[in-house]
Amino acid sequence: MTRFALTIEFDGAPFMGLQRQSHGPSVQQSVEDAAHAVTGETVIMHAAGRTDSGVHALAMRAHVDIAKPFEPFRLMEALNARMRPDPVAVTACEVVPDDWHARFSCVGRAYVYRIANRRAPLTLERGKAWHITRPLDHAAMDRAAQSLVGRHDFTTFRSVHCQAQSPLKTLDRLAVRREGETVLIEAEARSFLHHQVRSMVGCLALVGMGRWEEDALAQALAARDRQALGLNAPPDGLYFVKAVYPEA
Amino acid sequence: MTRFALTIEFDGAPFMGLQRQSHGPSVQQSVEDAAHAVTGETVIMHAAGRTDSGVHALAMRAHVDIAKPFEPFRLMEALNARMRPDPVAVTACEVVPDDWHARFSCVGRAYVYRIANRRAPLTLERGKAWHITRPLDHAAMDRAAQSLVGRHDFTTFRSVHCQAQSPLKTLDRLAVRREGETVLIEAEARSFLHHQVRSMVGCLALVGMGRWEEDALAQALAARDRQALGLNAPPDGLYFVKAVYPEA
Repeated sequence: MTRFALTIEFDGAPFMGLQRQSHGPSVQQSVEDAAHAVTGETVIMHAAGRTDSGVHALAMRAHVDIAKPFEPFRLMEALNARMRPDPVAVTACEVVPDDWHARFSCVGRAYVYRIANRRAPLTLERGKAWHITRPLDHAAMDRAAQSLVGRHDFTTFRSVHCQAQSPLKTLDRLAVRREGETVLIEAEARSFLHHQVRSMVGCLALVGMGRWEEDALAQALAARDRQALGLNAPPDGLYFVKAVYPEA
Repeated sequence: MTRFALTIEFDGAPFMGLQRQSHGPSVQQSVEDAAHAVTGETVIMHAAGRTDSGVHALAMRAHVDIAKPFEPFRLMEALNARMRPDPVAVTACEVVPDDWHARFSCVGRAYVYRIANRRAPLTLERGKAWHITRPLDHAAMDRAAQSLVGRHDFTTFRSVHCQAQSPLKTLDRLAVRREGETVLIEAEARSFLHHQVRSMVGCLALVGMGRWEEDALAQALAARDRQALGLNAPPDGLYFVKAVYPEA
C-alpha cells in the first residue's frame, strides 16, 4: 500500500458536507467513488477537517491508501477525470510516509470567511459569500475579535452536535479586514469545534452592524452557554484554506 | 420623464445575452420586467454594450426613462427586489440629463478576460473562467497582443453576424498578466466588433500555448479574413468591466 496526500478544492454548494452521509452527496463519496473506479480497490479518504454542507475548500488536505502502483501525478489526473461532473478537484498529490495522517498529523487549520457587504443582491458571488446589506464596521469587528484569541472554553461558539471531548481550544488568530465591499475574516487554530468559525463570525457581524457592543463578544465567551450565541453565520461564506503539518 | 443611469452587475450563465431575445431569458428582459412591475410603465433599457450569452458584467451601464417619480436609491432597491431570483443586480442608480445615452454617449469600453491556467478541473470558478490546462506563456501573449493595439481593420476578429458598418476599430489597450494560476487579459477601446475580444483572446491563447508564433497574431490581423482566426474563446471568462462617458 502507498499513502497519497491529496490537496482538494471544492465548491460546497451541492454537497451535504465533506464527510460521507447516508442522505446525500458528499465530497468524501465523490473522491472515494473516483478512487474505486480508478483502482478497483475500496478506498477510504481521511481529511484534515470535516466541513459542513455548503462550506467550500480552497486547499483541504486528505490521504488515501492505494495498493495499485501509481505515479502521484497520474493518480491526480485519473481522480479528476472521474470526478469531473462534481465541483471537486485534486490540485496536488504526493506520496507520504505510512504514519502521515491527514487528520491526526495536522497541527494547524485555517479558514477564511467572506462577507459581501453591500446593498445590491449578489450575482456572481451568489452562494460564495454571506450577503449583509447593513454597513459593517470592520475595524470594530477586528478589535472585538481579539477577545477570542487565546485558550478559552468555547462552549458558546460550539454546535450542540459537536463531538469534541472538551470545549477548550486555543485560537491562534482571528483577524478582520476589508477589501472594497468584501469583509474578510481569517481564523487560525490547531483545531476548531463544530460550527466554531461560523458562530464567531455571526457574533462579529452583530458587532459590525452595531447591534452588539464590542465587549459583548467577550461576555458571550465568558457565559460558556450556547444560548449566549448571537447568530450563526451561513456556510456560503466559509472556506477551508490551509492545513499545517510538521516538517518531515 | 426622468432618465436614470443604472450600473448593472450580472452572471451571464443563465442568459441568452444582454439583449432581449425571443428564444430565452436576457438581462434586458429581467430589468425591463422589473421596471414594469415597479412603475406600471412600459420601460425600455438601453445598455452600453450588447454582451453575448454566458458573458458576465461587473459594471455594465444602461439607462431607462421613467415617468413615475422616484428617488434613485428607491428605484434601485425596488428593481433589485423584483429581479432577485435572477443573477442581475443594479449596483448604482442616478438621474442623468435627457440627452445622456448609455450607448451613444459612451466613449470607452473595457473588458477583462479570465483564464484559469492549471491542470485540475475548475470547481468554484466553473463558468467564471476559461480553463486551459497547458501552461501559458503570458509574457509572450502580452508581447504579441501589442501588434493589435491601434487603428486596424479587425475583419479577422469579427463575427460573421457583426452588424457594425465598418471593420475599422481603434484598440487602445490589450494587456496580458498573470496572478498565480489566473491569466488576465484587459482590453480597452471606444467600441468593439461583435466577438472581437473573444477572438483576440482565442488567438492570444494559441500564442501562450506555443501553437502560434508571436508574429502570427499580426499576420492574422493583416489577412483581414475570418478564416485566419485561430480560435474564438468561450464566453465564460469574459467580463464587461467599465463604460466611460465624457465628464458632465
